Amino acid sequence: MSQLKDYNYDELVRFHEEVTADYKNACSKGLKLDMSRGKPGEEQLALSKDMLLLPVWDEACTGGGDARNYGILSGLPKCREFFAELLGVEAGQVFVGGNASLSLMYDLIAKAYTNGLLHSEKPWARLERVKFLCPAPGYDRHFTICESFGMEMITVAMTDQGPDMDQVEELVKDPEVKGMWCVPKYSNPDGIIYSDEVIDRIAQLKPAAPDFVVMWDNAYIVHEFEGDYVEFPDILKLCKAAGNEDMVVEFASTSKITLPGAGVSCFACSEANMKHLTKLITAQAISYDKMNQLRHLLFLKDKENVIALMKKHGAILKPRFDMVISKLDKEVEPLGIAKYIRPKGGYFVSVYAKPGTAKRIYSLMEEAGVVMTKAGATYPYGIDPDDSNLRVAPSFVSLDELSQAMDVFCTCIKLAAVEKELESYGEKRS
Amino acid sequence: MSQLKDYNYDELVRFHEEVTADYKNACSKGLKLDMSRGKPGEEQLALSKDMLLLPVWDEACTGGGDARNYGILSGLPKCREFFAELLGVEAGQVFVGGNASLSLMYDLIAKAYTNGLLHSEKPWARLERVKFLCPAPGYDRHFTICESFGMEMITVAMTDQGPDMDQVEELVKDPEVKGMWCVPKYSNPDGIIYSDEVIDRIAQLKPAAPDFVVMWDNAYIVHEFEGDYVEFPDILKLCKAAGNEDMVVEFASTSKITLPGAGVSCFACSEANMKHLTKLITAQAISYDKMNQLRHLLFLKDKENVIALMKKHGAILKPRFDMVISKLDKEVEPLGIAKYIRPKGGYFVSVYAKPGTAKRIYSLMEEAGVVMTKAGATYPYGIDPDDSNLRVAPSFVSLDELSQAMDVFCTCIKLAAVEKELESYGEKRS
Repeated sequence: MSQLKDYNYDELVRFHEEVTADYKNACSKGLKLDMSRGKPGEEQLALSKDMLLLPVWDEACTGGGDARNYGILSGLPKCREFFAELLGVEAGQVFVGGNASLSLMYDLIAKAYTNGLLHSEKPWARLERVKFLCPAPGYDRHFTICESFGMEMITVAMTDQGPDMDQVEELVKDPEVKGMWCVPKYSNPDGIIYSDEVIDRIAQLKPAAPDFVVMWDNAYIVHEFEGDYVEFPDILKLCKAAGNEDMVVEFASTSKITLPGAGVSCFACSEANMKHLTKLITAQAISYDKMNQLRHLLFLKDKENVIALMKKHGAILKPRFDMVISKLDKEVEPLGIAKYIRPKGGYFVSVYAKPGTAKRIYSLMEEAGVVMTKAGATYPYGIDPDDSNLRVAPSFVSLDELSQAMDVFCTCIKLAAVEKELESYGEKRS
Repeated sequence: MSQLKDYNYDELVRFHEEVTADYKNACSKGLKLDMSRGKPGEEQLALSKDMLLLPVWDEACTGGGDARNYGILSGLPKCREFFAELLGVEAGQVFVGGNASLSLMYDLIAKAYTNGLLHSEKPWARLERVKFLCPAPGYDRHFTICESFGMEMITVAMTDQGPDMDQVEELVKDPEVKGMWCVPKYSNPDGIIYSDEVIDRIAQLKPAAPDFVVMWDNAYIVHEFEGDYVEFPDILKLCKAAGNEDMVVEFASTSKITLPGAGVSCFACSEANMKHLTKLITAQAISYDKMNQLRHLLFLKDKENVIALMKKHGAILKPRFDMVISKLDKEVEPLGIAKYIRPKGGYFVSVYAKPGTAKRIYSLMEEAGVVMTKAGATYPYGIDPDDSNLRVAPSFVSLDELSQAMDVFCTCIKLAAVEKELESYGEKRS
């Protein structure tokens, strides 16, 4: 099989006919599959079944306070210790919250708007303009937060080492640039790990805005599905060493360790930030759900145990990712019509189809009964400048369904690519 | 025993000596009691023990969706139905949230600031000034929310029928007045039920601000400890009938039905408000903890069952409130140095000591080892203009401890009162 770009016109027409037939065949199957979100599947959920049977009542006071009543805003002391070990920080740097780190992130930005962060000259709501750096492709829900507050999102290119730091270092000279999103380990959707150099450069940023905040969303901190657990630098320590102690807030949760939506989240930050934020949160909450914190503490115990549990998640996920990659390797790669990254952790495979075809592929998939993350969703304002990136989320469907979905996906990539080639032939002719 | 105001100087001096001796005696006991917050006690918590043993895993999909995974932002359908029955509204009017209605209230105000409410001309953060009506004495955490956003709080007097509506109707003519706090059933701290007339007048308000919001905190909707459950009007329906459909948001939670901090909260509002708010919440959360929603649904079942459970809570609380009232009746009432309300539900007894003595009483109590809600806390900015109101929270301590605490409290009320009398004698003499 030669690359599609080397096909002559007749070959393209023939290929188009073949792929169209494949696509029609796929459509006729009446599939109804959802590959849109990074949701754990049934087998993964079952790994946490026992958590729901733990004697939380009898152990109610073992977490460093009574988990059954009001109070202890910053979270059960032993739960703070648990997350501290996981993140490689100090327990005093950890605030344990409710069921979602996304809410903690949103709330932090909301408080920046209404009250200001620790070093804000005024609340962001009083500023003419707030700009935020969005390495892209990235996590759509980060961008939704920005949009909700009317921020101006500035797209930063992603490299295979993390965000393009030359760009970032230049952009932070603008005092209107107030922060930056990062998913440093198994980035959503590319699945890459930020290199040590990138992390160092982030820690050493000298932003013009005194209240610039690095939103360090460590969503996949223990989420390897291939190979051993990868140790990861403590951004809090690195920032402190660079004199940027208050510049970063780190977020994590058990959403993809235990049960999504019924897990426990946390943030970690400097002592001064903790004081500032805790004071603001005092108006918002008496305490978060400490019974669920306790339930997680009893079930997850410590980092070692978490990593053992994540091995089981990994064993369920690996065949799925293998399936995605092998289908792409077989059907798409030889044609030279898509690039993709082979992640070892996280929840996604990021596919870069032929520029100008992502939206078309999304529509074709939708018509064939397979819902993907919307094309463009991984970019600020939903606009992928190349109309190329598609995020594959293989965790939720069964292996058999995934196989079918990937067949359709490969067909759609091919169909959109050959349509594009034929289109440019037409343009050349006319 | 005659009233203190009728004592002559010598009687006052003698009384002062007696009460000082009582107080010293109390201090020598080394008490360490907390009557500061409306926290359920151990016996009440135990009523929900079985909830923690329910087979939530097996029942995971019985609430109208899979409770174990992301999604269903507005809450499990059957949990929405459950709260709808409790509040006497429609299921579609209910949004089921996380562990705390306080957070839902804070979040609503936060969104008013950053995005605006449904009928806001602009986000409140862009306004010169935002004023909020605070019937007082009231719930200190409502006032903390106002303070956190820099609102100007306007104190509205409480009558035994609810907020002074003549005042309210006058004040809402100011377009800078953006809303009002209400705890309509067993108001915190007075424990009174708003009269039908007051509720009607609230529903029929004609505020100048198009986005005026009634924060209807129905915290004690089923929280009778004496007598039968008292049916309560549906404020949503009344507002709708008055052409004010979007003016009110109602809040409730199971914090004092099951476990405080580990319960489930909700808000209820018009269809248009629901649409507006859900869209904004989409940026903040993927979903709230549906496993805990399910756990509550399985345990609480329906309104009838909730009322039966609340009877058990009431049986635990009643002797505590009886103790508070009987001590006050015996020790304080005959001296004419305090007024207090005899509630039939809720969590507090509101005591109006001799004007100018509440802070002194709080300090005396603290010195004797009994922590009360801070004097003034029940008023905006922590300032009770009469320095008179004290909130007694008898639920958390044991009956025996409560008896001791109330003895000290009565002694402190007397001591502060006689000090005040002697002081005015001194003033008259000099």
